[in-house]
Amino acid sequence: MIGGAPGAFMGDVHRRALALSGQFSLVAGCLSRHPQQALAAGRALGLAPERTYADWAQMARAEAARPDGIALAIIVTPNDTHLPVAAAFLAAGIPVLCEKPLALTLEQAQHFASRFTAKANDMVMAYTYSGYAMVREARRLVQAGALGAIRNIQVEYLQDWLGNADSNGGWRLDPQTGGAGGCLGDIGTHAFHLAEFVSGLQCQSLSARVSRLVPGRAVPDDAQLQLRFSHAAIGSLWVSQVATGCGNGLRLRLYGEKAGLEWKQEQPDTLALSTMDGRTTHTARGGSAVLTPSFLPRGHPEGYLEAFARLYSDTARLLGGLDAPLLPRLAAGVRGLGFVEAALQSGARDGAWTMLRT
Amino acid sequence: MIGGAPGAFMGDVHRRALALSGQFSLVAGCLSRHPQQALAAGRALGLAPERTYADWAQMARAEAARPDGIALAIIVTPNDTHLPVAAAFLAAGIPVLCEKPLALTLEQAQHFASRFTAKANDMVMAYTYSGYAMVREARRLVQAGALGAIRNIQVEYLQDWLGNADSNGGWRLDPQTGGAGGCLGDIGTHAFHLAEFVSGLQCQSLSARVSRLVPGRAVPDDAQLQLRFSHAAIGSLWVSQVATGCGNGLRLRLYGEKAGLEWKQEQPDTLALSTMDGRTTHTARGGSAVLTPSFLPRGHPEGYLEAFARLYSDTARLLGGLDAPLLPRLAAGVRGLGFVEAALQSGARDGAWTMLRT
Amino acid sequence: MIGGAPGAFMGDVHRRALALSGQFSLVAGCLSRHPQQALAAGRALGLAPERTYADWAQMARAEAARPDGIALAIIVTPNDTHLPVAAAFLAAGIPVLCEKPLALTLEQAQHFASRFTAKANDMVMAYTYSGYAMVREARRLVQAGALGAIRNIQVEYLQDWLGNADSNGGWRLDPQTGGAGGCLGDIGTHAFHLAEFVSGLQCQSLSARVSRLVPGRAVPDDAQLQLRFSHAAIGSLWVSQVATGCGNGLRLRLYGEKAGLEWKQEQPDTLALSTMDGRTTHTARGGSAVLTPSFLPRGHPEGYLEAFARLYSDTARLLGGLDAPLLPRLAAGVRGLGFVEAALQSGARDGAWTMLRT
Amino acid sequence: MIGGAPGAFMGDVHRRALALSGQFSLVAGCLSRHPQQALAAGRALGLAPERTYADWAQMARAEAARPDGIALAIIVTPNDTHLPVAAAFLAAGIPVLCEKPLALTLEQAQHFASRFTAKANDMVMAYTYSGYAMVREARRLVQAGALGAIRNIQVEYLQDWLGNADSNGGWRLDPQTGGAGGCLGDIGTHAFHLAEFVSGLQCQSLSARVSRLVPGRAVPDDAQLQLRFSHAAIGSLWVSQVATGCGNGLRLRLYGEKAGLEWKQEQPDTLALSTMDGRTTHTARGGSAVLTPSFLPRGHPEGYLEAFARLYSDTARLLGGLDAPLLPRLAAGVRGLGFVEAALQSGARDGAWTMLRT
Repeated sequence: MIGGAPGAFMGDVHRRALALSGQFSLVAGCLSRHPQQALAAGRALGLAPERTYADWAQMARAEAARPDGIALAIIVTPNDTHLPVAAAFLAAGIPVLCEKPLALTLEQAQHFASRFTAKANDMVMAYTYSGYAMVREARRLVQAGALGAIRNIQVEYLQDWLGNADSNGGWRLDPQTGGAGGCLGDIGTHAFHLAEFVSGLQCQSLSARVSRLVPGRAVPDDAQLQLRFSHAAIGSLWVSQVATGCGNGLRLRLYGEKAGLEWKQEQPDTLALSTMDGRTTHTARGGSAVLTPSFLPRGHPEGYLEAFARLYSDTARLLGGLDAPLLPRLAAGVRGLGFVEAALQSGARDGAWTMLRT
Repeated sequence: MIGGAPGAFMGDVHRRALALSGQFSLVAGCLSRHPQQALAAGRALGLAPERTYADWAQMARAEAARPDGIALAIIVTPNDTHLPVAAAFLAAGIPVLCEKPLALTLEQAQHFASRFTAKANDMVMAYTYSGYAMVREARRLVQAGALGAIRNIQVEYLQDWLGNADSNGGWRLDPQTGGAGGCLGDIGTHAFHLAEFVSGLQCQSLSARVSRLVPGRAVPDDAQLQLRFSHAAIGSLWVSQVATGCGNGLRLRLYGEKAGLEWKQEQPDTLALSTMDGRTTHTARGGSAVLTPSFLPRGHPEGYLEAFARLYSDTARLLGGLDAPLLPRLAAGVRGLGFVEAALQSGARDGAWTMLRT
Repeated sequence: MIGGAPGAFMGDVHRRALALSGQFSLVAGCLSRHPQQALAAGRALGLAPERTYADWAQMARAEAARPDGIALAIIVTPNDTHLPVAAAFLAAGIPVLCEKPLALTLEQAQHFASRFTAKANDMVMAYTYSGYAMVREARRLVQAGALGAIRNIQVEYLQDWLGNADSNGGWRLDPQTGGAGGCLGDIGTHAFHLAEFVSGLQCQSLSARVSRLVPGRAVPDDAQLQLRFSHAAIGSLWVSQVATGCGNGLRLRLYGEKAGLEWKQEQPDTLALSTMDGRTTHTARGGSAVLTPSFLPRGHPEGYLEAFARLYSDTARLLGGLDAPLLPRLAAGVRGLGFVEAALQSGARDGAWTMLRT
Repeated sequence: MIGGAPGAFMGDVHRRALALSGQFSLVAGCLSRHPQQALAAGRALGLAPERTYADWAQMARAEAARPDGIALAIIVTPNDTHLPVAAAFLAAGIPVLCEKPLALTLEQAQHFASRFTAKANDMVMAYTYSGYAMVREARRLVQAGALGAIRNIQVEYLQDWLGNADSNGGWRLDPQTGGAGGCLGDIGTHAFHLAEFVSGLQCQSLSARVSRLVPGRAVPDDAQLQLRFSHAAIGSLWVSQVATGCGNGLRLRLYGEKAGLEWKQEQPDTLALSTMDGRTTHTARGGSAVLTPSFLPRGHPEGYLEAFARLYSDTARLLGGLDAPLLPRLAAGVRGLGFVEAALQSGARDGAWTMLRT
């Protein structure tokens, strides 16, 4: 693991998720750039001192050279270092699981992708929400034709933890470290990936309103977009980190010729399918009506860590040479930056419709 | 009542609502342009034959001349005749309660409004949803500062009854009779009024995507708009009559500096207020925590007819010379057409931001 | 109408419901025992002075003698006078719609029923909740076999308006006027009727815990019962008027061999059907999947007054010589008292299983 | 771990939960009585062959003798062997975490408890649901007086996986292996513990209806009980494994003088508090309004495994000599059998009120 010292939110999440998957254990880390802190952090996590690094490039070389070297590098650093760290490990022949967004700009992402074309499948993007069983079931239902042709895709991702002028956003609010996209990169990429993942359609162009609703902020904290998809579907994406009262309100709705479908991240174990006769059927994860497998039986809630663990289980399959078709790879990472860039451009041009360039 | 023969949806709704209000009884009607049918319809509703008319102009004159003439004319005809009928009754000195949209075009609406400036308060617009007790309570809470300054206003109004190519939309799908706005006029005006009514803010400009998602249709059946409001608030309005699985899904969300608020028409008796500490408080109509009065005690559901009856109760106050500040009048009708026109114009110009001209 | 002066909760409800049904108008009343108050109340409701009475026996005689006499007497007096008032009108040949409970004791009820055997169908009991469209749809589904054989019937009716020692329960807390059953008569009879109405089964015996949870009260305010039904079904009924936080929480659950069903009075427009494969289908009133008719289309909420109006519509059918098989009659009233008596007896004998004697 | 070979539901759950807690790793096991199968199962879980046992007594002796012997024995065998296995490890000085119910009969449980009085705190009972953060928060709120004096405690635990005559209940339906309590021991003990854990009150006596709703079954599959608690509170407990359509419907409601509280296991991240003024406040785990700590921030769902992991985290504290006051110990296990026995006795005596003997 690179980044994610004890106490960091995402580092702890990754560690619990990989333990939960039962497929990985943490054996090496570069948890800080400062040798003393790196050592202390490694010790706190039970790592051997000789596998605790303060320099990721050194870690990549050293682990690649060990016979028992790591099978996977997990990147949970701030956004500005995702690419150089990933490059070091991929170049050393070590597959990577990387936090989103992949890069700060589309140009960086595309440059990286062209360099690592041959290893595009060895790079997993942590689009966590695609790991929920009922998100995968939704995708399956769409593919099976349960909705008919999709007409409208609505996705929203609402938080409020940046709702005050003095909210502590850390590097996420610094364009140098987190990127100019602000909420678009931080959570908008999740929502965008979810919309394409479940619908199976590609967003082709968008029109954006991009705002800094809390004055004095350097990056956007709220944006709303009109979307045009392949096959003439249209849609919308709203992302906010200042939607007062919202915790982690990611919600997807698809409307097709035959049925509408809704999934809410805060109640992830059910999926609702509605038809014109006035019936809405809520299907529970783990029930016999659901074909997507999961960890626990019906009625025993799975949550965010289980979704994350599913990404790790899939990654273990990947490393074992098996198929893992639902796992987001490098291309999905690049696409996220394509989304952020188009949104920023459209927003800057008063909502002019803008093509996605990936 | 003009229009609304037995069996017509809105005619029946108005009759039940006025009976429920306990303030009016139906004594005269022009229920059809065809004398025989008008007579039969009047008989079915228990009207005296001499007060059953086939010509609204004649009805206006005759009722104005009677000592026991009607106190209020209720207009439930298709959209294209709202204005001439209203003009006949207002000119005869009879107040009017009129279905929305007020007119087919903004120009017509403005011309009418300029002619009847002096009677603008004698013309009530049937923005039914503003009659729900908890909508009024929401408005009260906003005015009392419970949300702080409003940052974001999200409203959606989703139906699916026009979801198929062969759905029977009648005159609503005919631009000559229902107007070029389609879903924008038919239900979008409700959503637009609700957003302004509760927030107390004015929409100043908008950017629209306007679609005919079911091929071959003459008017829009789905539209989504970005909105800019007074006091730097932004927002969105989505209206659809092809959102598969949705019955009458009108839903309003406001996000302010201090709290977020949500109201859903299909569960109209509660209002949710959320804060950054993770609490969402659902307040029940009729409880002692609610200051807006209603018909029934807590836990005894009120619905659509009760909301409608509240408009009639307010109208009775108006006719009695009392105050009825929440009742939508002519200006609200004109404003609805301003919304429809701006949306159509923006949609035709690929979402260009367009000022509302009222 | 007998009882129910303006301002009384149930009187106002009945008046709005009968207006809403469009089938009745109020033309005579005995709204108080005091002539002056009766006259004032009648005037406030627009009754002719000569049809405003202060003595119900006189009203029964006078209205029976008029050519335009009332078609139906509505009894909304306190519980202790239901029987004598009903007797006066039935004896005069005037059908009756009566509030529950029918009487103060089972003995009174049975004596009355034996006297009016020939008119048992001219006496309608105001079991309001059986008027909800989705309650009737639930009954229809059960009869159609959607649940298979029913194993378990769970009904609860929770309020909190008597939750404090100083709550103003009026005559409902006085055993002389409201009966010794307290909450069992006041709302327990509703829950009991609902359970039998929807399930189509008969409760045969019960075991009760009957409590006065607020000290110093003369009648029970909370009771919970085990039930045994015909066809080996079992169940439970919980009724409380001190369940803090509950408005009017009537809720029915049936569990059968094939499916479970749930209906909640506070969200009356949907019905949930659950199966062992993990699917719960919520069906919306007014949708094409529902066979029971109702007033409004899908998504336009109906509430308590609409349910009540449905009883009045059925009563109009009855008076018109038509079939109204779902309308509760005298026998249902007697059965309610059988329930109350068995519950009180069982409670007094520490929960001993007790047969229902009707 | 004793019992719980790969593929067994509870074994897998325990393994994921201890991994998730980050406090334990599985190093030894007695996963089968058959040496070959035990070895294969151990290998599948990555255990060293020399620490894979086919005899629990031998495992207890061997592990106690190792310098790196296990710190905790986890018992996930069928109910009939909980006691002898626990005895072997406790006697060897190894603390135990044991599945419920503790024993097959109260007599066995009490005998065991009297033998291990000195080690009562070294024995943890897997009452998983007490590990949910919002269950602990509910307990805290009750202790802080948020409800006032509690009047009524309602708990229900509904499943349907034994709903058919041919449902595969395995040893749980065999009184020799699972106990005569059937659903009372299997899930009723969870519900009972939850009611006492959150309310802080003790159940003193009960009246039970105990049923075999699916014909031909050797043990009860549905039971409903009236409860009397300390401090004059009353309540009810309903447990069913044949409630068609229910997955794992554990639900607790408490009604106090000042407020009512509700928690549902299937949506475990929120807690609802209702008051007489018509407000119901849903508080989200992880929000600043919640004082009980948890793993993930607000809006990122925690589920069943997180609750289980919290028991393991607490057990790690216990083993580390720290305080873990919320952790159920031996006494809670005995109390569960007291509940089962009283329920069976009361059911056999037609619901006669029966004292709990622990």
